[in-house]
Formats: sequence, C-alpha cells, structure tokens
Amino acid sequence: MIVLMKKTATQADVDRVVAVLKEHGLGAHLSVGAQATLIGVLGDKSRLGGQDLTLLDGVESCVPILHSYKLASRDMTPEGRVVTVGGVAIGGKQLAIMAGPCAVESEAQIMAAAEGVKAAGAQFLRGGAYKPRTSPYAFQGLEDEGYRLLRKAGDAFGLRVVSEVVGVEQVETAAQYCDMFQIGARNMQNFRLLKAVGRSGVPVLLKRGIASTIEEWLDAAEYIMSEGNGNVVLCERGIRTFETATRNTLDVSAAPVVKERSCLPIIIDPSHAAGKAAYVAPLALAGVAAGADGLIVEVHPDPKTAVSDAAQQLTIPAFAALQKQVAAVAAAVGRE
Amino acid sequence: MIVLMKKTATQADVDRVVAVLKEHGLGAHLSVGAQATLIGVLGDKSRLGGQDLTLLDGVESCVPILHSYKLASRDMTPEGRVVTVGGVAIGGKQLAIMAGPCAVESEAQIMAAAEGVKAAGAQFLRGGAYKPRTSPYAFQGLEDEGYRLLRKAGDAFGLRVVSEVVGVEQVETAAQYCDMFQIGARNMQNFRLLKAVGRSGVPVLLKRGIASTIEEWLDAAEYIMSEGNGNVVLCERGIRTFETATRNTLDVSAAPVVKERSCLPIIIDPSHAAGKAAYVAPLALAGVAAGADGLIVEVHPDPKTAVSDAAQQLTIPAFAALQKQVAAVAAAVGRE
Amino acid sequence: MIVLMKKTATQADVDRVVAVLKEHGLGAHLSVGAQATLIGVLGDKSRLGGQDLTLLDGVESCVPILHSYKLASRDMTPEGRVVTVGGVAIGGKQLAIMAGPCAVESEAQIMAAAEGVKAAGAQFLRGGAYKPRTSPYAFQGLEDEGYRLLRKAGDAFGLRVVSEVVGVEQVETAAQYCDMFQIGARNMQNFRLLKAVGRSGVPVLLKRGIASTIEEWLDAAEYIMSEGNGNVVLCERGIRTFETATRNTLDVSAAPVVKERSCLPIIIDPSHAAGKAAYVAPLALAGVAAGADGLIVEVHPDPKTAVSDAAQQLTIPAFAALQKQVAAVAAAVGRE
Amino acid sequence: MIVLMKKTATQADVDRVVAVLKEHGLGAHLSVGAQATLIGVLGDKSRLGGQDLTLLDGVESCVPILHSYKLASRDMTPEGRVVTVGGVAIGGKQLAIMAGPCAVESEAQIMAAAEGVKAAGAQFLRGGAYKPRTSPYAFQGLEDEGYRLLRKAGDAFGLRVVSEVVGVEQVETAAQYCDMFQIGARNMQNFRLLKAVGRSGVPVLLKRGIASTIEEWLDAAEYIMSEGNGNVVLCERGIRTFETATRNTLDVSAAPVVKERSCLPIIIDPSHAAGKAAYVAPLALAGVAAGADGLIVEVHPDPKTAVSDAAQQLTIPAFAALQKQVAAVAAAVGRE
Repeated sequence: MIVLMKKTATQADVDRVVAVLKEHGLGAHLSVGAQATLIGVLGDKSRLGGQDLTLLDGVESCVPILHSYKLASRDMTPEGRVVTVGGVAIGGKQLAIMAGPCAVESEAQIMAAAEGVKAAGAQFLRGGAYKPRTSPYAFQGLEDEGYRLLRKAGDAFGLRVVSEVVGVEQVETAAQYCDMFQIGARNMQNFRLLKAVGRSGVPVLLKRGIASTIEEWLDAAEYIMSEGNGNVVLCERGIRTFETATRNTLDVSAAPVVKERSCLPIIIDPSHAAGKAAYVAPLALAGVAAGADGLIVEVHPDPKTAVSDAAQQLTIPAFAALQKQVAAVAAAVGRE
Repeated sequence: MIVLMKKTATQADVDRVVAVLKEHGLGAHLSVGAQATLIGVLGDKSRLGGQDLTLLDGVESCVPILHSYKLASRDMTPEGRVVTVGGVAIGGKQLAIMAGPCAVESEAQIMAAAEGVKAAGAQFLRGGAYKPRTSPYAFQGLEDEGYRLLRKAGDAFGLRVVSEVVGVEQVETAAQYCDMFQIGARNMQNFRLLKAVGRSGVPVLLKRGIASTIEEWLDAAEYIMSEGNGNVVLCERGIRTFETATRNTLDVSAAPVVKERSCLPIIIDPSHAAGKAAYVAPLALAGVAAGADGLIVEVHPDPKTAVSDAAQQLTIPAFAALQKQVAAVAAAVGRE
Repeated sequence: MIVLMKKTATQADVDRVVAVLKEHGLGAHLSVGAQATLIGVLGDKSRLGGQDLTLLDGVESCVPILHSYKLASRDMTPEGRVVTVGGVAIGGKQLAIMAGPCAVESEAQIMAAAEGVKAAGAQFLRGGAYKPRTSPYAFQGLEDEGYRLLRKAGDAFGLRVVSEVVGVEQVETAAQYCDMFQIGARNMQNFRLLKAVGRSGVPVLLKRGIASTIEEWLDAAEYIMSEGNGNVVLCERGIRTFETATRNTLDVSAAPVVKERSCLPIIIDPSHAAGKAAYVAPLALAGVAAGADGLIVEVHPDPKTAVSDAAQQLTIPAFAALQKQVAAVAAAVGRE
Repeated sequence: MIVLMKKTATQADVDRVVAVLKEHGLGAHLSVGAQATLIGVLGDKSRLGGQDLTLLDGVESCVPILHSYKLASRDMTPEGRVVTVGGVAIGGKQLAIMAGPCAVESEAQIMAAAEGVKAAGAQFLRGGAYKPRTSPYAFQGLEDEGYRLLRKAGDAFGLRVVSEVVGVEQVETAAQYCDMFQIGARNMQNFRLLKAVGRSGVPVLLKRGIASTIEEWLDAAEYIMSEGNGNVVLCERGIRTFETATRNTLDVSAAPVVKERSCLPIIIDPSHAAGKAAYVAPLALAGVAAGADGLIVEVHPDPKTAVSDAAQQLTIPAFAALQKQVAAVAAAVGRE
C-alpha cells in the first residue's frame, strides 16, 4: 500500500503516519516529491487490522497495490490448477462441456436431456433443482426431488452431475446427489454459503456475480478455498451493463484476465449471457477462442415447453451442431 | 403482455399463438398493422406457467406491460404504508433517523455511539454484528455477541435496534435482540433469507442490491410480503456504475420512483454511497429533499480506530451538525 | 506516479526504470518491500512524453497519483471561481436558475416560455436551436433562426440566453446571439469544439458526458480553460447506468465531488436525468440540497405539443411551484 | 408503437388518444383487457412529429416496437452488404485485417509498421493523424502531415489506408489521403461529422461509442447512409462498464446482434478493449469466432517508445503470430 500525503501536510503529519505504521510492525519508505510526499508501506498491511490511514491528518489517499486473495492467485500455483470431478479433469488440455436444461422439470424431461447431451459429447449434466427466481410467483424448482432425478439421469447415461445450491441447509442433501455444486450469480457474495460449500469438500462451480469485478470474484473463490476446498472452477456468465440487446454482456476478457491473475480454471456460460438461443453458439465459440477451459450450455429436449428461460435453451440437435463447431475452434487454439 | 409477430409471419403462425393462448385460458386481441401484427394478451399471463411465446414460429418478441409484484405495488395501497417499529412510524410525516457504527466492536464503543446518536435525535441504533466482507481475511463481526451488545445499548438509551441478518439460521436468534432486521445489498436476492425474514414477522429494512433495478428490488420486497410480513422499508444505498469518485453512485431518483410505483417507505443510506465522510452530509440532505422517509447514517465515536468502513463514518459532533441541517431541509419540503 | 515492480523483477530491471526516469529529468525514490519494490516518480510525469513504463521489463503496473487538469483544479483557485454572465453571477451565494423549452419551436412559443420563466424568477432563458438527435429522421431544430428567436425573447424579458453549439462552424454566429454557450453531453469530448469555444471567450455551460467520469469532465473543462477562457460552468445531467426507471441516473454526488476537486461552479439539470416531468422537482431539490450552484430546467408553455422531449418538460405553473420549493431548500442550506 | 392506458383511464381518455392518432393519419386497434386497455398504433409513427402521447390524460406509457433506422436494417438488405475499399471486400467470406500504430509518429515509424503488417498479411494500414486525447496536454497527433505519411506508407507497401477524422473541416483534406475514414468512439454521435462523411462518399469505419447501445450505433450509421453513403463498416471496440481489469469491456455479442439486426459488416478492435497487449490475441480470436468480418489491431514497430497507448500495441512479430491463429480460427468457423 502507498499512502499519498496532501500537499498541505506538515512534517508532523508525515511523522504520525510513520509512527502508526511502526506501532503495527510495519515499515515505511518516504518519497518526497515536488508535488507531494508518498509513503510506501512495507510489510503485510493486514497487520493494520482495519485501521484506515486516510483518517489521519494530512493523508490524501491510500493506494492498494496487492490483491487480498492468496490461494486463488496465480502466484501461489503458477502452473494452474486442474480440478477433477468424477475422473473428468477441468483446466487441462481437453475442454469440459456441461449441458442440460435450466430446470429439472420431470423424469422424462431430464432423461431425454441426458441422453441427448451425452450423445453429443458432454461430460456433465446440468439442471436446476432449486431455482432462484426474481418473482416469488414464478416456478421455484422441484427442490430435493430435482436433485434425485438429476442423479438418476446422470447415472443412467454416465454423466457427472452439477446443480445449484442456494442455502447452507441444502448442502448436506445436495452432496448426496451432486458431483459438483454450482453457486449462482446471485449468491456469489453469500459468504456463509461459500464457507459451507468450502467445508463440504465437493467441487464448486462459482458463477460470477452480475455486477462483480474479477477481483471480487477471486475473493469469493478465496472464501471457499480458505476452508480447505481447492476444487473451484470459475464460470463467466455475463455482467450487467447498459446494453439490453442481450440478457447480460458476456465479458469474454475474463478468460485471459483470470488466466493471468488466478490459478483456477474458467468456463463460459453463453446461455445466460445471450438470453436468446440464436446468440448462444457465437458466444460459446468466442469463449473457447479466448482460452476458456469449457462451457456450460442450457439444452432442453423441447425448449418451447420449458418452464423457465425457454428463450435461451438450445434443442438437442442445435447443441450437437454446436459441439462440432466447438471441436473445430478448440483445435484451432490448441485444445481438444 | 403484447406479442409482436415477425413481418414474415404467416396467418398460420398468428393462429397458432392465439390457439396457445386459448389453451391457457387467455384471450387475444389482434392489431394488424402495415408493418407487423400485434397480439394483445388478455388475462393473467402467469397462466402461461413459464411457457415462452417467443419460441413459437413467427414470433418476433414479447413485450411485458405489467410488473410482477402485487403487495408491494402502489396500486394495492394507494395511500402508502406506514411501518411502525417499537412505536416509531416510518413513512409518516416525521423522518426516521437510524445511526450508529458500521460494526459493533465492543461494549464501550456501542454504548458511546448510542449515547451520541440519541443526544443528536436519532430514534434507531444501527450496528453490524455479522459483517459480510469481500475478503475472508477481513474482520467478520462479533456475531451473536454483537446483537447482545447492540440490544443492551439500545435499551440503555431508548433506541430501537436494527442489525443485519446474513443467514436463515440466524433469524431466530436475531429476532430476540433486534427490533428490525436489515437485509444487506449482497443478500437482496437471497430468496431463502427473504422468505425466512418474511415468516419471522419482524420489520425488515431491505437494502437495494448494488446492481439491482428498482423493479427487481420491489420483487424482492414482494418475497418478504408474500410470506405475510408487510413491514418492509426500502433503503437506497448507491448502485455500481463506472464512476469511481464515490464508493457507489447514490440513485436519489429512487425516492420519487419508489413513491410512484410502491406503497413502501424508503430511506437513504448516504454513507455506503459516499464512501467518504466529507460527502455524507450533502447526500443525506439530497435524499431528504428528494422525498425520502428517513436516513441511516454510519456514526462512530472514534472513526480513526474503526475496524471497517472507517473512511465513511461520521464523528458524533459531525452527525449532530448534520441533524440540524436535516431538520432545516425536512421543514423546507414539508416534513419534520 | 508510482511504479510497482513485479516480484520477479531483478536489480537490473529496477536500475533500468530509474535510468529511464533520469533520462527524462525525473527523480526516483525506491521502497524495497518484502513483497515488491515500488518506485516513486518525482517530478512532472508529462516529461515522459507518453512513454509507458509498464512496457519495461520487470514492471507490474503504474499507479497515477495526480490528475492531469490544472486550471480546473481546486488547488489552483482554492476559493472557487464565480462565473459572471451578463451581470449574473454563477457560483456565488445566489442560485442561478436557467429555464426554457427543450427546443425553440416558434416565436410565439419562445416568447410565452420567456415570459413565464421570467415571472417565476429565472435569470436565464434556455432553448435548443441545433438539436442533436439520435435518429436522422427526428426534428433537428430551427438552427440559426432558433438563436435569433431566443435572443429576441431574452431581450424582451430581460433574460440572459444560453443555447447549445454543436459544431466549430457555428461558434461565430452563435456568439452574436448567446450570452452563454452550452456544450451538450454528446460533445463533451469533441475536443475541437471545446477549443473553439475556449478561443471564443464566451462563457460555457459544459454538460457531463453520459458515460464520462468526473475526472474526464474536468479534463474537458481544462481544454476550454487552456485556450484562455476560464468562464466554465459544469452541468450534471445524469449518467448512463443499468437502471431504466429514469432516462439517466442523476449523479447528485457530483456536486460535492466537484466542489472538492475543482474551482468551477456546478449546476444540475434534473430534466434530462428524470426523463419524466413528475420526477423533475424531487431531483431539482436534491441537487440544491447537495450544494449545486443552480439549475437548468426544461419548461414549455404547452408540453403536450412539444416536438421533442415532451415527457420531461414542466408547464409554467409547475415551474413556478418548483421555484418556491427551491427557495425554501436553498434557504435551508444557506443559499438564496 | 403500443399505448398502454392507466387502469383508471376513462372511455373519454381512450377516445381522445384514438382521435389524436386519427388527426395524424394513424389507425388504432384496441385491446381491452381485465387489467388495462392497450392501443396498437397502426402506421408510421413518425407522423406524430414528436408529439408525446404519454402526456395525454389516462396514458400510462408508450412501448416502441420498431427501430428508427431503415437503411442500416437487415430488413432492407437481407443478404447483407459487402463494402469494398480499394478493391478489398469487407463483409464477404474473407476477413479484413487492418493494422498499424495508434498514432503516426514519424516517416520511419509508419514505414516500418507498414512493411511489418503487410508481410504479416494485413490489407489495411491504420494510424492516427488527429488524436482525440482526454487531456489537452497530451500529444495530439501530427495532423495533416500524419495523413500524408500514412498515404506514402500505404502506397509503398500496397496497403489501403484508414485514419480518423475528428472535425467537419478536415473531411476534404482527409479524403485526399485516406481510402477509408474512421469515426472514433467519442464522435459516434457527432451528427454533423456523420453527415459530412456521409456526403463525402468515402467508406466509413464507424466505431461504437463507449456507452452507446447497439440501437444508437445503428442510428448513427443511418445518419451516414441517409446522406447517400452506404459504405459503412461497424467496429466494436469495447464499452464502459464497472470492470477495470480491462480498459473497456469487449462486447463480443455485438457481432451476432449486428448480424441479425443490420445489413452492415462488423469488425472488432481488440486493442482498445484490452488496453494491454497480453489480452489482444484472445480478444481478437474471440471476435473472429463470434462471426466478425475482420479486425483492426494496434501494431507498432517498437511499442516501448510509442507516444500514446503504448501498453496495448503489439510488436510486429506478435502480430504475425496472431495472424496465424486468426487464420486457424477463421477456418474453423468457415471463413478465410
């Protein structure tokens, strides 16, 4: 951290800042410029225990230099992490493909979806059991029965199963059915839930919050990892901007930025970003081209009858066609 | 809802949409224009049960006309709701003033804060017991002990007590100590928590999510109200934008917009919007001038030693000075 | 500016940065920490002439410390500037009130508007002659005839006249008719236009760009001032965010932030922020309470027939009523 | 357009709206629902001449259905437009690649850049002669001499030349040197400039405004096309969001959205979106995968000495390497 003193700061002001740093076991290097004095803080600033130096007399501002996450950082694991879920590696040379309906609606629906996405080459089956919905009057999911049906479909077709958990109290039950938990965008900063899935040890797919910076997202991953669970995969699913042509704005730059700053794998959810089936394939291919480690795509055996997010779900033939394009682009960027 | 057909839609496409509407017990009114055909949907569109008409052949788009919240709407309670907490009315002629530190840190600190804000005319004492923090390594609050100290300080100085609940599992304990629950910005769409505080019957201060539209905020209030708890007060605390001069951008327009669309009272949190003590007073006064029903302000007996959000907390004398200005502006807009 | 070296930087890397700084006549102060080395740059960084130090080996990032505007800064004129237009001071104790229609439509209309706003206490008449419109097929203004009619109405009722200039080629003609130029939000970074109005010497009302930070806005003001024209007044008119309930989001915080960083007066345009007449008064009062030096309000003798922005224009009686409320709030915050 | 009446609207209110529509030669189709009455407006709403129906008694809101651009729409030219510049087609099967430095700095620099990008397969040489800069104290470009040097370098190596015009008064001179004009992001709504380049007939590369919706961008293209110049190519270069990890957020979704709504070709500028050389290649490949018709990339013979945007310019070898990856991804999505 660097402390910038005001132009009008006195020597006594500077001395006081240095004294406060010393009290907390921190060093200080002074740079006395023509326009202002800077104080470089030497040592781990967490020793300040929350004290805000900007409140000291003569201090203009404090400039943070280093990020607060450690386990999630690239520095810690320069070679990157590979997260393995039921024998399938995420973050290696091969792309991980997750597909399935927005919500589990019935046994017939999830079985048909599983069969279709397996045939098209997916390794994971997705499907919502608990659905966080904007309005309390919208369909809220089949809940635990949804987890059970998803597991049954996954087992029937040899697919790993990923599904969202929305509360601490579901973690135990969900762990019986899911190979991987999803933390949804709305819960990215539900810190108690993050700690709970951290303690569970189950691999976690952590979606980016709709208005979260990449730094905040990595801090959220750190919550899970600091509980001893390093099996975290990030998922970019679009951020909220002023543009309304798409449901969200896919921040495809997140792929190279995460690769640079963090050791965690990152996959792309083109469906929630697009909000419209016609845009899903271009966004999926863009994500792969930008270096993502996989995709999670909404696929429904009959989108026209879907009870939620119908507009953005692909049919099984459309998903199979997308898989061929994905394979071609993956090969072009040195992936499988 | 209005269904806009594509220019290229056939009569058969139009007939199919009308047929689907009829299947669900809905009527249809056709407007055949030179450029396109429109179908006005008559009846409660929730009968569609999630089916997305845009997936039918020939449909260009669907335009929603009515919002999804009911109990929170102005239509339902045109005169507006007054929420009473421990005998103090929020939403009436008199402004409600809540003040206190970001976090409860110690008995001495919260007692000093309570004494100070009471003397300056606040009716509510605020203070965080559970603190959602971006980094897992930051101070996380005194937890249940924080609630206990807050209650003690509130009782000692005749102040109602408001504090955040961050998980379903805390609701029961928190209800023993708090007169009003706060749902923080990060949890505005933690729907299970919303339902839990709804069932508790305890009055709720619902902060706006950092990137939530006013419509989504009212839908969140609806989650609480639909569980039978109509004692909801909204709190605007700034939204995330591209501007970095302030911590968040206070959307002061939320006051008149909420007054028009909703029956719920709305108060302003200038502290989290500003992020800097020097901007708190101007934003507080702006909120009152725009028609807010009250304020919630961070006040600390010694901000320089605060363990969190130090930069934005007012001293007690600064808060007392603000209260005088608030009284003057309130009088200017016909409030007390 | 501070240069942060990578953890992996060698002594040779550090030496090279210091050498580059010396080449440009700049000093360097080193802070060697446990985690990284920082180099404080001493002297005026503009001497680097655009060279980007982050491209040198071993450099992690550069952190700017000081802003690039000088004449527009508070440091330069700590007491603040008062801009006088035709004898009316903007930035003093008395609020400056500008009012009039979105566009000049006819002599009868602008005369009626001028009479009405004068009677209600405005000192300035506004009205668009050249109208930048999103679509080429929308009404584009009466152009030079608009300036002429505005002047005529201003003279008839003793009002100063402010109107937008949209191109360098209009500056000369506009200067014959206007007491003050308006630079619209879309042209805030039309740097050639800024320089042209700077050279004209005519006072300038500089609207904030729809997605411009306050720092960029002050840099734009600097363009005008660096041509020798210090008569610049800033106008906050709402920024673009994800919220659609209002046309733009009024950033009322801009008032205290500008007062802190800049010597220039700032007024508020509640009309373009609101986009709806019902929200204009609350936003206007919020702006005054937050410390703005005045208002610019769209007022039309018959809004229902207005050719542009009809929804947000006040009637003359509504404006007169607002003026009474403005006077009360102004008094409450020590203004007139 | 659809007019939504308030629940409280009377029959007289509805009749009045219908009468106003008839006065303007427009038809009306009524849909009388349980909750509200809708009036579908039949005919070209531009006949309303700006009159805002929401100001009539009993009107809740008006919902626009059709966009305001015509020539730029997909409807008008369903097969899409191919824009040919000096014999090179943009919008066909082959990708168009434009490359060169941010700014023309000297003859040696632009010659070296031209030689390098030509060898790597680019068809266009880019380079700024007039540079719009945030601060008036930053390098502003070589101006007309820059155009001349760019032309010389283009001619020497058989490259078409594209450069920015920033004012109406430069169009004539720039037309002598440039094969294609660039309109920069800051000038996307400088409507007088759009009309001037429209009248010039020279092909135009229209960058998206930093906070412009895709609809506004297409309206800006319409300004150029409505002057008789259909040779418009769109360029997505990132939008402003809350995320600061990249200079702007590349909205890669713009490629499929533009392809659906508009007949115009679209290319991607990964350099201004990224703001950092390390992210340029991933974003370039993402753009091609998403269906863009080409790229414009900043390339400098020696980025470390560049006078502007140094951090985001590629070296010539890095650009040559990128070109190989671009070719592979292009082939994967059926392009050349």
